[in-house]
Amino acid sequence: MNRAVSIAALMAGALCLIAAPSSAVARTSAPASAETDAGPVLVSPADWRAMAETGARYPMFAAEQARVERLVRAAMAHGVDVPVPADPGGGRTHEQHKRNYQALYGAGTLYRLTGERAYADFARDMLLEYARLYPTLGDHPAGRGQTPGRLFWQSLNDSVWLVYGSQGYDAIRDTLNPEDRRTIDEQVFRRMARFLSEETPQTFERIHNHATWAVAGVGMTGYVLRDRDLVEKALTGLSKNGEAGFIRQIDLLFSPDGYYSEGPYYQRYALAPFIIFARAIEQNEPERGIFRHRDGVLLKAVDTLIQASYGGYFIPINDAILDKGLDTEELVTGVAVAYARTGDPRLLSIAEAQGRTLLSPDGLKVAEGLAAGAARPFEFRPVLISDGPDGENGALAILRANGPDGQALVLKATGQGMGHGHFDKLNWLFYDNGQRVVTDYGAARFLNIEAKSGGVYLPENTSWAKQTVAHNTLVVNEQSHFGGDWRVGEEHAPEPLLFDIAEGTQIVSARMTSAYDGVVFTRTQALLEHPDLNRPVVVDLLRVEGDRPARYDLPLHFNGHIMTVGWEAQRGVAARPVLGEANGYQHLWVDASSQPSAETRSLAWLLDGRFYTYRFGASAASRAILVESGANDPDFNLRREPALIQRLDGQSDATFFSVLEPHGRYDGTAETVTGSESRIRDIRRLRGDDAEVIVLTLTSGRILALGVADSAEADRTHSVTADGQTYQWTGGYARFDRERPA
Amino acid sequence: MNRAVSIAALMAGALCLIAAPSSAVARTSAPASAETDAGPVLVSPADWRAMAETGARYPMFAAEQARVERLVRAAMAHGVDVPVPADPGGGRTHEQHKRNYQALYGAGTLYRLTGERAYADFARDMLLEYARLYPTLGDHPAGRGQTPGRLFWQSLNDSVWLVYGSQGYDAIRDTLNPEDRRTIDEQVFRRMARFLSEETPQTFERIHNHATWAVAGVGMTGYVLRDRDLVEKALTGLSKNGEAGFIRQIDLLFSPDGYYSEGPYYQRYALAPFIIFARAIEQNEPERGIFRHRDGVLLKAVDTLIQASYGGYFIPINDAILDKGLDTEELVTGVAVAYARTGDPRLLSIAEAQGRTLLSPDGLKVAEGLAAGAARPFEFRPVLISDGPDGENGALAILRANGPDGQALVLKATGQGMGHGHFDKLNWLFYDNGQRVVTDYGAARFLNIEAKSGGVYLPENTSWAKQTVAHNTLVVNEQSHFGGDWRVGEEHAPEPLLFDIAEGTQIVSARMTSAYDGVVFTRTQALLEHPDLNRPVVVDLLRVEGDRPARYDLPLHFNGHIMTVGWEAQRGVAARPVLGEANGYQHLWVDASSQPSAETRSLAWLLDGRFYTYRFGASAASRAILVESGANDPDFNLRREPALIQRLDGQSDATFFSVLEPHGRYDGTAETVTGSESRIRDIRRLRGDDAEVIVLTLTSGRILALGVADSAEADRTHSVTADGQTYQWTGGYARFDRERPA
Repeated sequence: MNRAVSIAALMAGALCLIAAPSSAVARTSAPASAETDAGPVLVSPADWRAMAETGARYPMFAAEQARVERLVRAAMAHGVDVPVPADPGGGRTHEQHKRNYQALYGAGTLYRLTGERAYADFARDMLLEYARLYPTLGDHPAGRGQTPGRLFWQSLNDSVWLVYGSQGYDAIRDTLNPEDRRTIDEQVFRRMARFLSEETPQTFERIHNHATWAVAGVGMTGYVLRDRDLVEKALTGLSKNGEAGFIRQIDLLFSPDGYYSEGPYYQRYALAPFIIFARAIEQNEPERGIFRHRDGVLLKAVDTLIQASYGGYFIPINDAILDKGLDTEELVTGVAVAYARTGDPRLLSIAEAQGRTLLSPDGLKVAEGLAAGAARPFEFRPVLISDGPDGENGALAILRANGPDGQALVLKATGQGMGHGHFDKLNWLFYDNGQRVVTDYGAARFLNIEAKSGGVYLPENTSWAKQTVAHNTLVVNEQSHFGGDWRVGEEHAPEPLLFDIAEGTQIVSARMTSAYDGVVFTRTQALLEHPDLNRPVVVDLLRVEGDRPARYDLPLHFNGHIMTVGWEAQRGVAARPVLGEANGYQHLWVDASSQPSAETRSLAWLLDGRFYTYRFGASAASRAILVESGANDPDFNLRREPALIQRLDGQSDATFFSVLEPHGRYDGTAETVTGSESRIRDIRRLRGDDAEVIVLTLTSGRILALGVADSAEADRTHSVTADGQTYQWTGGYARFDRERPA
Repeated sequence: MNRAVSIAALMAGALCLIAAPSSAVARTSAPASAETDAGPVLVSPADWRAMAETGARYPMFAAEQARVERLVRAAMAHGVDVPVPADPGGGRTHEQHKRNYQALYGAGTLYRLTGERAYADFARDMLLEYARLYPTLGDHPAGRGQTPGRLFWQSLNDSVWLVYGSQGYDAIRDTLNPEDRRTIDEQVFRRMARFLSEETPQTFERIHNHATWAVAGVGMTGYVLRDRDLVEKALTGLSKNGEAGFIRQIDLLFSPDGYYSEGPYYQRYALAPFIIFARAIEQNEPERGIFRHRDGVLLKAVDTLIQASYGGYFIPINDAILDKGLDTEELVTGVAVAYARTGDPRLLSIAEAQGRTLLSPDGLKVAEGLAAGAARPFEFRPVLISDGPDGENGALAILRANGPDGQALVLKATGQGMGHGHFDKLNWLFYDNGQRVVTDYGAARFLNIEAKSGGVYLPENTSWAKQTVAHNTLVVNEQSHFGGDWRVGEEHAPEPLLFDIAEGTQIVSARMTSAYDGVVFTRTQALLEHPDLNRPVVVDLLRVEGDRPARYDLPLHFNGHIMTVGWEAQRGVAARPVLGEANGYQHLWVDASSQPSAETRSLAWLLDGRFYTYRFGASAASRAILVESGANDPDFNLRREPALIQRLDGQSDATFFSVLEPHGRYDGTAETVTGSESRIRDIRRLRGDDAEVIVLTLTSGRILALGVADSAEADRTHSVTADGQTYQWTGGYARFDRERPA
C-alpha cells in the first residue's frame, strides 16, 4: 500500500471514530458496545491524524519513524515469536518478550501513522499468541524475589510490558473483529492487569518505582478496556481510598523540587511510568489536572533530572549504572511530554542531544520546535534540590562553574533513598573537563548480562558498592553509616545548613547527626575562583564531633593516573595487604601507607590531559593510605579503582580539610604540557573558638582563605587569629583575599 | 593594516623578488649579495602570493590561518621571551623555546599571507634575542645522554627548533636590514647549523631519526643562508661521500614499502623532517627528483603510516605513546605534501579527519580539494608491509575486515627497530569495534610530563614495556627475546611464510629462529568469516620446536572486564603473589592460577558493549594464569592491565592454539543484550605427520576447520585424520567448512 492510499484509509477510519469522544467512555463504568469503544484513547484520533499528515516534515520525527519501521519490520520478518517463559534477565525468552512489547508498541504506532494494515495484523497475531499463552502461565520458572512475574522473572518486567503493550493495543484495537478483540481484551490485558493489581498487592500497593510501573500498566489498560474500576484502583489503590496508587506515589516519592527519593538513576527509570501514565490521565481525564498536581511536580522532575547530570550522564549516587544518561528512552519521553506542556525551549537542546523523540503528539511538537530552530541551551546551574515529600529530608547540592563541561561539585546530603540507597551521608563527587574526577562507584551490576548473576545486583553491590568506605565520606571505626541498615537510614537525613552562590564563591554546608551513635559530622564545601588560579578549586572541610576516641577514615575515590605521591610512602610493591575485614574494607588492596604525621600532604594525578593536585590535612596526626578496589572478588565483579584514605586514630573531635585543584593541560597530539605545576604553595587550617579558617597560600604569594563558623547562623560574629593575622566575619562563612603577607 | 592593503603590499614585495629565481642561488656556492639573496626560498614568492590571494576561499586554509593567528598573537601579546635554558622537557624554559619556534614559524607565514609587518618585526625581535643568547650557550645544564642540546636538554629538540625556525626566518629574511640579517644569519642560524652538524657528528652522521631532524634543520638552513656547503653535508654527510646524510637515511631507514624501521610511532615522528626537508629540496633542486627517489618511497611512507593505524591511532608496536594518531602535526604535513604530489583523493578524507592542513602551497591544494568535495574514503586494506632497506628484514602484517572500525589483526614480524624496538617477535594485536582488544602496552612514558622523570622513558619502559612477557608472544624460561639485547635483535628478523587474502579467509604466517638459542617458533594467524558466526574470528596457532624441555609462556594482554573465567581457578582474593623475578615478570600480580590440564579453556570479557570469548589449548597439559601489571612499581608509573598467561612446562616441542571470537552487544542506554553467548561450542587441535588442523565446532552444529602445514610450500600435500574425519589439502593451509558431522 502506498503512502497516499494509507493516509486516506486512516483518515476514513479516523472520521468514524471522532463521533465517540475518546475520553467519554473512561468516565463511565458501564461498558459500551465494542463498535463505538474500540478507537484509540491514549492518543486521540485527531492527534494521530496530525502526526500522519505532518510528521514527515520534521526531520527528527521522520527519523524516529524510520527507526521504528526498521525495528518493527525486523520483528515482522522474524515472525510472531511468543516463547514459553524460561530465562532470567538477559536470556532468550526474556529478551524476546522485551522485543515483543517494543514491536507491539511500534506496530500500533506505525499502523496509525501509515495506515498500513500489515502492522495492525502483526500486532493482532502476536496478541492472539499471547492470548493463548498467558492464561496457561503460573509463576515464572526463574522467578525472583517477592514478586516473580509471569512473562518475566520479576513482575516489574511484566508491568513494563503492559505499559507499552497497552499503548500498542490501543492503536490497533479498532481494527479487530469483535471476537479477536474480546479474546485479547480478556485473555491478555485484563488478566495481566488483574495479575499486576489484585493478585500482587504486595507490589501494587507499595510506594516504590515497581509499583509505579504496575499502576501505570493497570491504569492504562483500564482506559483502553474502558474499565473504570481498573483506572480507579491504579489512581487510588486497591481499596480506592488514596492510601496507595499513583496519586499517593506522586505525593510521597517526589520532593517539592521534583527530586525522586531513590536518586537520579532510579528517577530516570521511574520517570517513564509517571510521565506516560500521567499523559494518559491527562488525555482521558483532563479535569484532573495531573500535570499541575503539587505545583507541577512531574514536570519539575524532568528538569531536576537533567540538572542531576554531567557530561550527559546522570550523577551516579546510590545504586546506579554509570552509562545511563540523558539519551535514555525514559528521558526522551520526559523531555517530549514536558516540552509539549511548558514550551521551554531549553528542553529542545536536550532533545537535540538525545537525537530522537517520541512518535506521539508531544514528540511531534519537539520535532517541530527543533525544525523551527527554537532550541536554546539548557542552563546547568548551581542548585540545592530538596529531598522528601515535604522537602525536609535532606537535599542534593550541586555547585557549578564554567558551563556544562566545567566544574561540578555534588554534595549528597539526601535521605537514604530506600533499599537502593547507599550508606554515604555527606558524600561528594567532583566533575571537571567533562570527566568524573572524584567518583562514586555506582552499583556493582552488569545489567541484563546473564554471565554476571543473570544481570541482577551482584553480591559486591552489598559488600562494596553500598558501603561507606566505597564513598568519599566519613567512616567511623570501619563501620558503615547506620550499621549498613537502610531502614535505619530512612529515619535520619542530613540537615542542610548553608547554600550560597556568589560570583567566584559557591558554598554548601550540611550536618549529619545519626549515621553513628554519638558522632555528629559537618561538611562544608566551596568552589572558589581566583585570578591567580587556573580554574576553580574545591575547599572541603569536614568537622567531626564524637563522644569517644575512634578511628576516623576519610576516603577520596579519584580517577586518573598518579603523577606524584607527595609524602613518604611505604609501598606495597611486592605484596599488597588487604585493608580490613568487612564493610567494604575487605575489597581494598593497600598500595601504599604512611606513618602518622601532622603535616599536610599532596597527591597529584592526570586525567584526560588535565592535572589534579589534592592537598589534605587534619587536626591531628593522620596516616595516608593508597588503596585499590578488587580484593576478595572471586568472580572479577569489581572494577579496580584507586582511592586515598586519610586515617585519624584515637581522636574524639577532629577536622579534615583539603583543597582539590584542577590545573594545566597535557596535549598528547601536540606534545605540549602547560600548567603542570600546582599554583598553590600550601594550605593551612586555623582554629578559633567557634570557627575554622582554611588558608591557601598561592605560588603568586597571594592568600585565599575561607572562614567557616561552627554554626551557620547569619548574625554571629567570629574571629580567628594566628601568626599575627586576624580573620573576622559575621555569619556562617566568609572569604578572604589578601596580598602577600607582611 | 587592513587586509586589502596588506595583500597589495605583499604583492609589491613579491614582484621585486621574482627577478631572482628562488632556486638559482642554492645551486651555486658563491654567496650572492644580501639584497638579491634575501627572498624566500623554501616557499616560492609566487606560491606565497597564491596563498595570500586565494587561501581565504577555502575553509580549511582559512581556519588554519585563524588558528595560527591566535597562536602568534598570543605570543606577541606575551612579548619576546627567550629565556636562558635551564629546564628539562616539560619545564618552563623548554616549553618557552618550543613556543618560540612555533611562533617564529607562524609569524613568518602570517607575514607572507597578510603582509602585516608586525609579524615580521616580532620574528626579527625574537631572533635578535636569540642572536644575543645563543653564542653564550654551552651544553644545556639539564643536558641528557650523548648529545645534550644548547637551547634544550637534548640536541634533538634543537634540531626541531631549527627545522621550524629556518622556515619562519626564510619568510621574513627579506624584511631585515643588512645588519640584522647578518647578525641573525651568523649568530643564530649558522651557529646552530654548525652545532648540529660538525660539532655533534655523533648525531649528525647516524642513521636514525635524531639525525634526520639534524640534517633537515642544517640543510634547510643551508638553503636559507644560500650556503651550499651546509646543504651538501646535510644531503651526503659531513664527508660529503654519501655514507651519511639525508639520502643515505632514506635508503636505510625505509623499506621498499615505505615502512620505517622503528615502527609507526617513530615513523610518524621521523616523517616530519623527511617530508619537510624533501619538500625544501624539491623546491630548490627539483632536478634531484627527491620524491621519486627509490620508487617514491617517501610518499609511500605516508600511505603506509596511515595503513598502520586503527581508529585514528597508530598501532603502538615498539616504544609508542598510545594517544598518537592520524591527527598529529607530522602526518598533517605528510598528507599535505603527499596529496600535492599524487592528487590521491583518499588522502583528502584523512585531511578531513585531521581537521587542519598546512599554511603552505600543499596545504592550499588540500583545502581546495576538500572545498571541491573531492575527498574519497581512505581504503584500509589487508597489507603485508616489508621491513628493512631491501625489504628482507621481516614484515608487518595487517589483516582487516569490515572497514575502518571493523576487525584488524596485526602480526608483528618486523625487524628489531633499533633501540626503541621491543622484544616481541611474532607479537600480535587485535582491534574490533573501534577498540584495542588484544593490546600492546606501548611505551612506559609520560611524554614531557616533568613529574614523571622529566617526561623521558621511565625505568619501567625497560623493565616492563620492552620485555617479551609484556607482549602476546612466546616467552621461553621467563627470558626475553635475544636476552633483552636489541643489538643482538638487530641481527635477526622473522621470516614471513605466508600471506593470503581471500573472501572470508585471511591468513598470515611467519617464523622466528633466533630469539632463543635452540628454539624455532612459527605463528599462523587467520581471520575467518562464517555465516553462523556473528563476526570474523581469529584463529591463532603457535608451534614451538625446541632442543630441550623448557617453560613456555604465552601471554595474552586483553582489554575489558572479565565476564567468565571458564576453568577451575585458584583466586588470589586476599593475597596476590608476584609472578616472577625479572624480565617483566616482577611487574605482574597473580590474580588467579590453575593446575595443569590438557582441556581447552575459555575466558570471556566485555569491552565497550561487545563480548569477546577466547578459547585456548595446547599440545600438552598447561596452566592458565590471570595476571595484572603494576607490581614492583614504586612510583605508580605503570597502567594496571590484565593478561592471561598460558604456561606449558617441560616440553621441547609444543603447540599453542586458540580462537578469539567477538560477539554480541550490550547497549546500556537501551538496556538490551544480544548475542552474549559464544557461537562456538568447542575447539580442537588435530595433529598429522606434517600439519595441524584446528577444528571449530559451532553451536549451529557446523564445522569450521583450518589446516596449517608445518611447511608453507605450495605444492606439498597434507593429510590429517582423526575421529574418522580426514582433512586433506595441498599447500601451506586450507580451510574446511562442513555440515554437522555424521
